[in-house]
Formats: sequence, C-alpha cells, structure tokens
Amino acid sequence: MAVVDKTAEALATTNLPYLEHPKGHQSPTTTDRIFMAHRGGKIRVAGKFHIDNPDLLALAYTPGVSHVSQAVAADPALAYCLTGKGNSVAVVTDGSAVLGLGNLGPRAALPVMEGKAMLFRQLAGIDAWPICLDTQAPDEIVRIVTALAPSFGGINLEDISAPRCFEVEHRLQNTLDIPVMHDDQHGTAVVVLAALLNALKVTGRRLDQVVIVVNGLGAAGIACCRLLLAAGASRLLGCDKQGLVLTGPPEALRRSRLHLPGLIRHAHPLGTLRQALRGAHVFIGLSVGNVLTPDHVRLMAEDPIVFALANPDPELPPEPGHRHCRIYATGRSDHPNQINNLLGFPGMFRGALDARATTFNEPMLLAAAAALADLVPARSLSETCIIPSAFDPRVVPAVAKAVSQTARDTGVARCGLR
Amino acid sequence: MAVVDKTAEALATTNLPYLEHPKGHQSPTTTDRIFMAHRGGKIRVAGKFHIDNPDLLALAYTPGVSHVSQAVAADPALAYCLTGKGNSVAVVTDGSAVLGLGNLGPRAALPVMEGKAMLFRQLAGIDAWPICLDTQAPDEIVRIVTALAPSFGGINLEDISAPRCFEVEHRLQNTLDIPVMHDDQHGTAVVVLAALLNALKVTGRRLDQVVIVVNGLGAAGIACCRLLLAAGASRLLGCDKQGLVLTGPPEALRRSRLHLPGLIRHAHPLGTLRQALRGAHVFIGLSVGNVLTPDHVRLMAEDPIVFALANPDPELPPEPGHRHCRIYATGRSDHPNQINNLLGFPGMFRGALDARATTFNEPMLLAAAAALADLVPARSLSETCIIPSAFDPRVVPAVAKAVSQTARDTGVARCGLR
Repeated sequence: MAVVDKTAEALATTNLPYLEHPKGHQSPTTTDRIFMAHRGGKIRVAGKFHIDNPDLLALAYTPGVSHVSQAVAADPALAYCLTGKGNSVAVVTDGSAVLGLGNLGPRAALPVMEGKAMLFRQLAGIDAWPICLDTQAPDEIVRIVTALAPSFGGINLEDISAPRCFEVEHRLQNTLDIPVMHDDQHGTAVVVLAALLNALKVTGRRLDQVVIVVNGLGAAGIACCRLLLAAGASRLLGCDKQGLVLTGPPEALRRSRLHLPGLIRHAHPLGTLRQALRGAHVFIGLSVGNVLTPDHVRLMAEDPIVFALANPDPELPPEPGHRHCRIYATGRSDHPNQINNLLGFPGMFRGALDARATTFNEPMLLAAAAALADLVPARSLSETCIIPSAFDPRVVPAVAKAVSQTARDTGVARCGLR
Repeated sequence: MAVVDKTAEALATTNLPYLEHPKGHQSPTTTDRIFMAHRGGKIRVAGKFHIDNPDLLALAYTPGVSHVSQAVAADPALAYCLTGKGNSVAVVTDGSAVLGLGNLGPRAALPVMEGKAMLFRQLAGIDAWPICLDTQAPDEIVRIVTALAPSFGGINLEDISAPRCFEVEHRLQNTLDIPVMHDDQHGTAVVVLAALLNALKVTGRRLDQVVIVVNGLGAAGIACCRLLLAAGASRLLGCDKQGLVLTGPPEALRRSRLHLPGLIRHAHPLGTLRQALRGAHVFIGLSVGNVLTPDHVRLMAEDPIVFALANPDPELPPEPGHRHCRIYATGRSDHPNQINNLLGFPGMFRGALDARATTFNEPMLLAAAAALADLVPARSLSETCIIPSAFDPRVVPAVAKAVSQTARDTGVARCGLR
C-alpha cells in the first residue's frame, strides 16, 4: 500500500526523534501511520502537461502566455475558460476552531485543510488550495479573501469559530461574485437535513409536524436551525449550555432564520434541555459528548430520532443510542448512519462551479439535501440506512447536478455547461 | 502529443465562439494552440495518495489528522515535516506589471502565474500556487502576504511594478521568517550576473575593471545594479529614459546599493545614454526595444558585451547585435545566449527551501550566479555560449546546492538535510 511504502522511506530519511522507534519495536502504531502519511504534506501541485521543448515553453509561458493574458484583460470572463479559476476553491481558515480542538492557529490547521483539498480533488475533481490566515479579525479576513478572490472560483471557509464565522461568511457572500460557503455551517446542515428527511420517511412523520431539539448553537447548530426552518420545520427548540435559549412561533422563527444568533436568550433561558426534550420527536446534537442519557431519550416522543454528532464522543453513546432510539446517527465511521460532511461539500462546490454560480443560496442548499436524501432508494431505507455512504460514487454527481440546476433555476448561474 | 489531444477535446466541448474555426480551416494556428493549451488552466492540485477506504480516510482526515494538528500546535516547526509548507511557494502578484504588457490586473496575470507554477513543479519539484491580488496598495499587499505566510515555505513576488515592488519585498523580507524574492528583480539579476561573469572570461576582463552601462532602472535594472555592485563591479552607469541618471564613486555606490532608487537623478541627468556608452565595456538593457544602434556600439570599448534583454524587441536587434558585438545576448529563445529567468528562480527557491532558509540574502544570490556561470565548462565557453540552456538538467541541482550551502554558511538556514 502506498502509505506503507512512504512509511519505510520516511523512517529511513527522518531525523526527527519524534518518529524514531524504540529498539525492538516491530510495527508502526496507528498514530505512527498517521504521522508518516503526513510526511511532507498530503497534496501537491502538478502541471497539466510536460514542458519538454522550447516550443511548449513558448506556448505555456512567455511569449505565448501574453496572448492569453491580453485576452483575459479584454474579457475577464475568459479567465473561466483560460485559467483554472473555474475549477478552483480556496480553503480558508484562521485556525480558530480546528476540528473539535479549538483555537490551534493557522499552522496547526494546515493538515486539516490539506485533507480537505485531497477530498475536493478525489471526490469532485476540484483544485482546492489551503489558505491559513494569521489573523482572526473579521475585517482582516474579509479584506484578505476579497483581495485573493480573482484567482479562485469559490471559497470554502473552514474551522472559523462562531460567532465571527457568521459575519465573515455573510460579508464575503455579499461582496464576492463567486460562491462562498462555510462548510462547518451549511455543509453540516445539508447532510443533517438529508438524513432527517429520510429518518422521517422511516418513522412516518412530516418535517412540519415534528418537534426538533437542536443542542449546540455554534456554527453548525445555527446553520442547521436555519436550513430546517427553510425546509419547513415549524417546531424548533434550540438549546445550548444554558438550556433552552431559542424558540418561537413557527412563522416568526422562519422569517428570522437569517438572524438566529440575535434571538438567542443566553441570559434568560426558557427552560432546560430536559424540558425541551419532553415530547420532542428529534434531537440533533452538535455540541459535546455525553449530555444525553437514556432517561432523556425516554422523555421524547415515540420513535425518537437522535443525531448525536459531537466528536469524538457523541452526545449519547452508541450502545444506549441503538437501544433506546428508533433511529440513531452519529458522525462516526464505525456505526451505521454516519452523518459526514463529505457527503455535502464536494458535490455542492462541484455544482456551484459547474454553473459558475455567483453564490450559494438557500434553494441550492435545500436541493443538495433533497438530492442526497433521494439517493437512498425506498427499498433500502431503514432505521440503519438513512444516508448514503461517503464512498458512494453516486453522491457527488447527484448533489452537483441538483445544485447547478437550482443555481440556474434561481438565476445565479452564469454557465449552462460543464 | 498531449496538447494536441487536449486540442481536439477542447474543440469538441467548447461553446465559445472565440475558439470556433471558420469552415474549411484545416489546422490550428499557433495562437489557437496557445489558447487551447490554456483551456481550463495549466495546473492542478493532486493528493499524494488515494483515499479508497474508511481506514485511510480516518488517517488523512478526521479523526487521525487531529493528532497531527495537535502536534503542530505544540511545536510549530513540525509544520515543515507534517505538511507541505516546507515545499510550497506562493506566487504573488497584483497584476500591475504583467510581463511587458503593463497593468493588466490580477485575473489577466493568472495565466502567467500558472505558467510559473508549472515550471516550479517541473524544474524544481516545488508546489507553487498563484495568488493574484485585487489590490495594488503596498500596505495591503504586505498585510495580506504576511497573513497567508503560515501555509507557505516561500514567497515569489511576480509582476509587481516598480517602485512599489521594492517596498513590498523589503517589508516582507523584514517581517517574515520565510524566504521572499521578487523574481523580476533578483532572478533576473542572478542570471545576468552569471552570464556577465562568463562573458568577461571570454573577453579576458575583470568585473571590477569594466565600465558597465545598465539601461532601464525599473525592478530588474535596479536589482542588476545592486548585484553587480555586490559582486565587485565598480564602474556603473545607470541610464533611464532621461539619460545617465545613476552613477558615483565605486565605494560610495557599493555602500548605497540597497538604496539606489533614492540616488537616481531623474530631474538632473548627468549626460546622455550616448555619452555613457563612450568607452563602456558592457551594456545591459532592461528597457525597451531598439534604443541602441550600431553607432552606439561603435562608441563602446573593444570587444563590447551587449545584453539586450527587452521583450519582445531587444534594445539592439540580433542582426547588428551579432555583427557589431563581441558578445551579444537577449532574452529570446531563437538566438544563442538566452538570458532566461528560468535559470534562476527554480534552483534558488529549491535551495532556500532545502535549507529552510529564513530569507534570500545577498550571498545566496551571488552563490547562485557563480554556480550558474560555472556550469559552462571552460572548454565550452565562447562568444555564443556564456550561459547554460534553460533545459539543462544540471542547472537546478547546482544552483540549489550553492544557495542552500550559502544559507547555512551565512547562518540563515534552519535545516541541513533534504
């Protein structure tokens, strides 16, 4: 396996005591394999053809390239045809919320961004490059990303902590003519919605009927609330560390879905998580591990649906989860129903780039969720099968098609063909 | 040939009237070939291994990557081992001086930057990514590049017009702990110096004896003056549109070589180009085409050396150039003695990255030039062979070795091994 080959080579060439094995140590541990797979990074830049004679050099570089530059200068839209702009995404972070580890900073975020870039390429054929910023000021981030937007076709914001991420994304979406998405927000929300739509098919309930508790009102939680409301959810209870802090009459909440952080009653909770769970049909956890017990689940309505998505420990551990819930899902790969962002961002960006969309709008997100849900055929739908696998090759084309079509239907596309 | 294959595919899929051929048109013109080679851009991002099962996913992405992030957070220097930082260069432009075409802006600059990235990869195995900035304010450029420095091992500034480029480069070199080089300045200077060292071997003169006229005091011209002075040139005459505007006693000029723009007497020229050329041994043109005539060359000393490097038309055309000069060089690939930046930047950055140098200092530039010059063995040295070919596979390793060794010798290296 390629990684093992690299392992041997890396061990032979490293001078880092960190990776040395004690004498007699036979085989690398899992952590060793992780580090060795990361030696020298996980991505590279490649030319699309080899320049092996002066003729090709003059075509790819000076003087030939000057013709291309002049053409783009005369018609900037030609950048989409004559450069990689139409297929490239900047993966932008400030390192303030690296995975579940917190504010590790830009250098420590780089391995995650490289992983993201690998997945963009492998799953969606997109050229994604990490941009790890040594600033956390929203103004600065917005200015920097605005300035580097000309070389990219889209912006994937990543691992930027709430609440700054809302402002940064919102301002960039308003400023740039390329699609901008904070994946921790909307990628998560799309996959959660898709899984929920299917879970409700299994339990025979409708989205506008069920009571949904969302626990954890950070980037992902807020975005989930927004998208659930857009999709037709009417009875939403948002909980955070303080308890029940976000709710309202259905129409009012739906109308205010773009401004939910402002409605959160941090100082005056309306109740406890426990109280919110009473009679609820759905629990979506985007918070921390082990905040739910079987007791909590027993308070819920019949056939409870629990998405316990905290990493690394879900809000409700798998054993009681499988036992007490009608449908139980986590972010973990070692259990069925893995709600994995991989199911969202590759196809979403593929579709946005294919349509040369100027933005990610709400209909595009809803379309992505619906397409994802529809990939599980009725005959396969079950308590342990509500979402496709991240490795299902149908996912990216289906999501991309739905997103690009919706971009065209909603007038934000600039291109009809791939 | 791969490009022709892409040609056919591109013609089949394009919907741009721009690339349509009139009926009956048999074969693509050169310009067509250029455009078709540029379809969709010239570079891509690739993963270093394929993620084809959940185990590899968990190793390259969550949760495995969190170990790597934590390790880098604890010891930021580990970014050089565990990410691509140690092998990556940002190719940064504001599009204000695209090739010889002027201020075309960031989008139009992107094809050039992609070409640069291709060459970084092909010649030096470096991962270079274009960053085309939609701002031309030096403060902004410095802030932006400073903010994105964590994800890169080096910065190649490109096609940024003088005099802003001097300030931008200088400030970034002072701020960042990674090597920063404006290739239009120092890459050009290194190759010019290498060619001149060899030309002087042929004519049997010494650098500190000859009178050198540098015509054109933009980014390249100023950098050439600096490096020539550092290398020991003592009799330097700098000319610009106004005439002879830069000169001085050898020691004074050498001491002030980092501040040459401030010494230029734009308003009070000291003479004309013609006067400067009288008795000069060397003419280095980094200006515009056709400013030199055979008459001018006849004013020079015996065995005149003329580097006519303006693009696309050299300061002195080839026919009179070959006839009247002892040694004649241009930037053109269709004549001997092509002074091509390709001979500089790949090996220079390779060496700087290998040594994990914190900067490009003057000794590193001088060492690069010497190594390049030495690649032409004495037995091959002649009037029409003063510089290696850009395709000579010995160039990058030799230049890289000299640069990295000098980085170590001058105390700016952080790494002894590749």
